[in-house]
Amino acid sequence: MAHGSGGTQMSSLIRDVFTSAYGNELLLTGDDAAVLEITALQEPGARLAFSTDSYVVTPHFFAGGDIGRLAVCGTVNDLATSGAQPLYLSLGFILEEGFELDSLRRITASIAAAAQEAGVRIVTGDTKVVERGKGDGIYINSSGVGLIAPGVALSGRSCLPGDTILLSGTLGDHGITIVSAREGLRFEAPVESDAAPLGELVQAVLAAAPRTRCFRDPTRGGLASTLNELAQQSHTCMLVDEDAVPVQDAVRGACDLLGYDLYHLANEGKMVAIVPPEQAEDALAALRHNRYGEEAAIIGTVTAADEQGLLHSPELPRTQELPRTAVARALVRTALGTLRIMDVLTGEQLPRIC
Amino acid sequence: MAHGSGGTQMSSLIRDVFTSAYGNELLLTGDDAAVLEITALQEPGARLAFSTDSYVVTPHFFAGGDIGRLAVCGTVNDLATSGAQPLYLSLGFILEEGFELDSLRRITASIAAAAQEAGVRIVTGDTKVVERGKGDGIYINSSGVGLIAPGVALSGRSCLPGDTILLSGTLGDHGITIVSAREGLRFEAPVESDAAPLGELVQAVLAAAPRTRCFRDPTRGGLASTLNELAQQSHTCMLVDEDAVPVQDAVRGACDLLGYDLYHLANEGKMVAIVPPEQAEDALAALRHNRYGEEAAIIGTVTAADEQGLLHSPELPRTQELPRTAVARALVRTALGTLRIMDVLTGEQLPRIC
Repeated sequence: MAHGSGGTQMSSLIRDVFTSAYGNELLLTGDDAAVLEITALQEPGARLAFSTDSYVVTPHFFAGGDIGRLAVCGTVNDLATSGAQPLYLSLGFILEEGFELDSLRRITASIAAAAQEAGVRIVTGDTKVVERGKGDGIYINSSGVGLIAPGVALSGRSCLPGDTILLSGTLGDHGITIVSAREGLRFEAPVESDAAPLGELVQAVLAAAPRTRCFRDPTRGGLASTLNELAQQSHTCMLVDEDAVPVQDAVRGACDLLGYDLYHLANEGKMVAIVPPEQAEDALAALRHNRYGEEAAIIGTVTAADEQGLLHSPELPRTQELPRTAVARALVRTALGTLRIMDVLTGEQLPRIC
Repeated sequence: MAHGSGGTQMSSLIRDVFTSAYGNELLLTGDDAAVLEITALQEPGARLAFSTDSYVVTPHFFAGGDIGRLAVCGTVNDLATSGAQPLYLSLGFILEEGFELDSLRRITASIAAAAQEAGVRIVTGDTKVVERGKGDGIYINSSGVGLIAPGVALSGRSCLPGDTILLSGTLGDHGITIVSAREGLRFEAPVESDAAPLGELVQAVLAAAPRTRCFRDPTRGGLASTLNELAQQSHTCMLVDEDAVPVQDAVRGACDLLGYDLYHLANEGKMVAIVPPEQAEDALAALRHNRYGEEAAIIGTVTAADEQGLLHSPELPRTQELPRTAVARALVRTALGTLRIMDVLTGEQLPRIC
């Protein structure tokens, strides 16, 4: 508890663990706020992106990552969705009394590595300690700021019927990794979390396809939440081709076995991009050229919605009558050509996935 | 738990509780990052301040405030210490399963009121839910960005021997309020938390005393931590006149009764300012003219330190020999003219004070 009191033990914790892992001249000033000189913001039309996320994932360590890597990648990716180049992060730790310093050191080392990979700097932070039984080892908040270049104006509201839906890689890896870690499951081909910082990937797509409408990272709630939100924001429908969605065999197998809906599973290193059709191939090439997008694919199309938000596109096969009471904002075309609704998750599927 | 899953229940929680309390057009875009156009940053020399704090205070509600008001004021004040005008906040909630929606509504209403009082907007947020027994009702992280005007360059490293130490009001009110709430104590004159947003107060001092060296808000660890940190950053000593420190009688009485050191008590609406002597009176007048600084006072002087960081000022009364082994960075001159060391808090005094 003394490590959270603002006194000498807290100072030594900060010095020995946090600044030794990811110290830099901005963090080390010792002032209460970081002072950031972002000269690119002087350019007319440049804007600031600002985002926040708290991480409560359990277990803290899993194949392909840990809570520290998530805390960096998640917030970097939220910034990246706005078209921003992520620049600076803050970190707020809530530690439970008794949490092992060795685990904390592993996590801060992972944070340092992920920050370097993402090209961002940790510039300000905070540590609180709560009593045993009032936390779960460690919770981390990370907030971040990034730079949006003049002319970049992305929003989920900009999707138009006819636009192409791209996905940067395989779906469900993070979700199934966490399930396996919790349940002690093993697969023949091991599944790892996809946690990755996608700032560079987004910049590459924007350079290749400057008319990109928006990006989204399908984390909690999965692709289903992402596409339904985009449809709602832009008053369109999202139509996904089931066969076109990249999935690892082990993930598909785990979904079948355990009854998870692939489209509800969380991802931590994937990006959805909505791009006008004439730039879709360029965007796809840019994705595939990036180290985090090698398995990218075009997975569907934005279509028109009627006033009730229902699918409205005459050329679509209507082999299956859709329930007129439901608001069908996202749909999947199965291998058989039938349509089914890509429901938003209701209730809880996998709590504390990130 | 479903409220944290990223699905429909989470959407309705966000809509019904958060955006209904403090929604604005930036928060309501529904995108993952807020896009901020801060045209004043186009001016050469303007800089961005960025800060973060997590709030784990218990109880959640207390005289003069609650965890929501703290979450706004604390981060606003951290930004203000850099000389910044606080502009935008993010909020990250970690809710424990079963936390009452009514309490959450009271807290978000308090956040909205405090944000209005502070002149800041909540522009981005995140909500996580953890299982019963893995939290304590509610934890809040707030991060913030603010604008530092060209020419403002404050740092704890700038304090010089001869500078004046100012305090914006009475010490210890927040700390004693929390103790009383926990222990069920009552005082004749009720004590309330001083939680207040001090962005305007800082701007007023800067306008009146532009050569101000730095500001600090003495929160966790109290005035003792603040002055010892400043002394360490600037290689000086801090000498405080005990008689000059504003304290409410009830707070002084509670300290005597309960054995708390006034200088270790947390404050949530007070500012320390270090100002060159020729601008000290102007700074004091500006503080007293502000609604949050009416009881401001000059409480001491920055003095020279020798190489060991010990007090080194020939004109000081040396009626008490200081222990040469200790590093005496902050000292108190008592009413009797003797000196005693203002120790940094070691161990824990009042856990989860903010």
